[in-house]
Amino acid sequence: MSGPAATARSATPMTPPTATLAQQALGYDFDGLPADVVTLAKQCLLDWLAVTLAAWDDPLVGILVSDAEEEGGNPHATLIGRGRRVARAQAALINGAASHALDYDDVNMWMSGHPTVTFTPALLAQAEGRQVSGRAFIEAFVSGYETASRVGWLVQPSHYARGFHATATIGAFAAAAACGRLLRLDAATMATAFGIAGTQAAGLKSVFGTMCKPLHAGLAARAGLQAARWAARGFTSRGDILECAQGFAATHSQDFNADKALGPAPQGFHIRNNLFKYHAACYLTHAPIECVKQLRLNHAIQPQDVRAITLKIDQETDKVCNIQQPASGLEAKFSLKLTTAFALAGIDTAAMSSYSAANANDPRLARLRDKVAIDFQNGWPHTLAEVRVELANGRHVEARFDSGVPEGDVARQGDKLVAKYRALATPVLGEAKAEALLELVQRLETLDSIDPLLSATGR
Amino acid sequence: MSGPAATARSATPMTPPTATLAQQALGYDFDGLPADVVTLAKQCLLDWLAVTLAAWDDPLVGILVSDAEEEGGNPHATLIGRGRRVARAQAALINGAASHALDYDDVNMWMSGHPTVTFTPALLAQAEGRQVSGRAFIEAFVSGYETASRVGWLVQPSHYARGFHATATIGAFAAAAACGRLLRLDAATMATAFGIAGTQAAGLKSVFGTMCKPLHAGLAARAGLQAARWAARGFTSRGDILECAQGFAATHSQDFNADKALGPAPQGFHIRNNLFKYHAACYLTHAPIECVKQLRLNHAIQPQDVRAITLKIDQETDKVCNIQQPASGLEAKFSLKLTTAFALAGIDTAAMSSYSAANANDPRLARLRDKVAIDFQNGWPHTLAEVRVELANGRHVEARFDSGVPEGDVARQGDKLVAKYRALATPVLGEAKAEALLELVQRLETLDSIDPLLSATGR
Repeated sequence: MSGPAATARSATPMTPPTATLAQQALGYDFDGLPADVVTLAKQCLLDWLAVTLAAWDDPLVGILVSDAEEEGGNPHATLIGRGRRVARAQAALINGAASHALDYDDVNMWMSGHPTVTFTPALLAQAEGRQVSGRAFIEAFVSGYETASRVGWLVQPSHYARGFHATATIGAFAAAAACGRLLRLDAATMATAFGIAGTQAAGLKSVFGTMCKPLHAGLAARAGLQAARWAARGFTSRGDILECAQGFAATHSQDFNADKALGPAPQGFHIRNNLFKYHAACYLTHAPIECVKQLRLNHAIQPQDVRAITLKIDQETDKVCNIQQPASGLEAKFSLKLTTAFALAGIDTAAMSSYSAANANDPRLARLRDKVAIDFQNGWPHTLAEVRVELANGRHVEARFDSGVPEGDVARQGDKLVAKYRALATPVLGEAKAEALLELVQRLETLDSIDPLLSATGR
Repeated sequence: MSGPAATARSATPMTPPTATLAQQALGYDFDGLPADVVTLAKQCLLDWLAVTLAAWDDPLVGILVSDAEEEGGNPHATLIGRGRRVARAQAALINGAASHALDYDDVNMWMSGHPTVTFTPALLAQAEGRQVSGRAFIEAFVSGYETASRVGWLVQPSHYARGFHATATIGAFAAAAACGRLLRLDAATMATAFGIAGTQAAGLKSVFGTMCKPLHAGLAARAGLQAARWAARGFTSRGDILECAQGFAATHSQDFNADKALGPAPQGFHIRNNLFKYHAACYLTHAPIECVKQLRLNHAIQPQDVRAITLKIDQETDKVCNIQQPASGLEAKFSLKLTTAFALAGIDTAAMSSYSAANANDPRLARLRDKVAIDFQNGWPHTLAEVRVELANGRHVEARFDSGVPEGDVARQGDKLVAKYRALATPVLGEAKAEALLELVQRLETLDSIDPLLSATGR
């Protein structure tokens, strides 16, 4: 509230760790990226397009689009799934909120949040119409991803525990990094962009369950986009926002793990630890679903052959997703027993449409559901499950799965993501358009411009 | 980061204090406002116009305007001092940043921040072109002001002490209140708007001394404007963001003074405790300037008659504004001795132009400056000063002033503000236009629409 501080600081100091983070964010060149990292970036983008397309007409998206229409703006940046363009900052906001609307987007445990929904909308909005090549896009994409994880490591776990939604807060840094890399800022300007992003970083976990949760991704995207652009135009801020007295870390966390955060990523790149969601249900139902899917495919199990199912899973899941007799599609997403039954019956757990009132109330599925007994465990990882299926012939089969461990086989992951993409994108775009977009993403690094890819997202 | 919370809360709960604050924010009707409160609202608006006009071509404003030009938008809302319109959210952002650029805008000690720069830009942006009467504008204005102080009382002093810039954070609530009142939201929707504003509330004191400090006012204005508009369109959030577990207060403060914050304001209205800045220098130089001004006017003191000046002021000011031999205009603003000399010499301390290198280096003023001796006190209010002037004829005169106490005489305050307004607005608008705008503000409650007032702010 007072002016005096103006005398205390006239230049932007360049000291680690913010300065180090800035240098790292600018340091990703396509030719230096391992092939699997390029593939992973394309997988993240494909998954992002899938979940964003699937939410194109979510009510929260409609509200933001109506508001943007009233504001107007130069039609520079595509709204995914709508075949129209709005102003860049509007597109970052709206596509960001849309992409997190279904809570079906990817996760990074180091960030303790959803990385891709924060920087991808900003990056696409900034890149469109500017002859940005697929390779340049991938460089900036990796910068956004790695920055999200680094800032996460710096301030977690207490940042999230204190009540801050890391997707919202840390996401602003990730979006600034991606846009800053695209704009080819110098290191001091990138650090300034982090300063502008850091003083905008906001978002409370307490609004989970409302439209504000997905909004956070859009706000982070807009904040990071504008931080990078304003910094590029000469807007000033501190260059040490992460570490300074009463800076971002000090005001939002008790942790400050600079060595871990700025040291080498585990396995070289944080994006190698990205976790995708393959089922349109609560994340804690994913491990049981994967167990049952394995058993069904490996042992050709038919629902009528099943006598009993025992699910071992952590006690905490009882509070989150243990609805016994779900009656609606939404309730089905939070029922360990019914999602297990879905997987046994071969229902497509990736498709939004599977979580219907019809399926929730299907007597055949309800019988299968009621054969599931849950044996809660104490102190297990929330993402771990063991399933034992007893068959009518007296045999039993078992499987174990931890949905907190990234898929080790990148090609197999790609196949799963294509299936998820098709399940979500085809109903929105139709098969021909969905396949055309898929093909463009798969050869992203060969594109001279990402514009055709964005044009292909229109219904 | 997980979806499960979606099941926990499906409706917006309406419980105090957020709900109470929402009802209060909607409860200001023109006919119920005391005459002095209406006058004070107009004084705040006049002062806001003065400081915003004076910053019309500040570099930070130029950066934001260039960025907005690139974005485009429907020309609905006037940029003060520029005679052109941009989209509403852009105007809230840019006018907000402009109005805080000089740090010459008003202050409220309960908020521990700058109230008027947060909600006024949002309110003007939302009101323009919609046939909003002066009376409706004043109702919403008072709502914004009172909300800023109430939320401030709720979370201060620890909110500011922890590193949060109250103008930025609490300002988002104030802007939401003002726009929500203008939109005539119902109480539940107003509480939801606070929920949307509260999860966007951000801004760190550590960026003081950079362009991000004034930016905070613009970001608060935009956040509050969009929160109210999105809530009006059906966007959801919690209705208890202030008090809920890990809500705004819990994550940003150790204080929660609900009884004080939601009880009657001191003297009935918080706006009665508004503090204006009358000098374009550091706030801690204001009390010495006022002392000397009094003495000069009451005793017809001429600079050449002065033998010595003793200034008693709190020790803390030594760290803030005790530059001994300022060489630039900016340094002059942070020099107790030179600003005291300015006041003795009759230089207009309200005018930006007085803080020039020429005045800083004027030998006549330097001689007067060096006659000032500072006798630092321990534990005084920072805003209190005592000045003793010894004259060549052996007499001495004394004065005491506390710039932390609001002016008791509203009419006298109005005269001082008109002088400040003229000093700042006339160089930008020219005398005829500046006087025309002044006249419109002074009869604001008679206007059928505030649009002519906005049109009158163009150069």
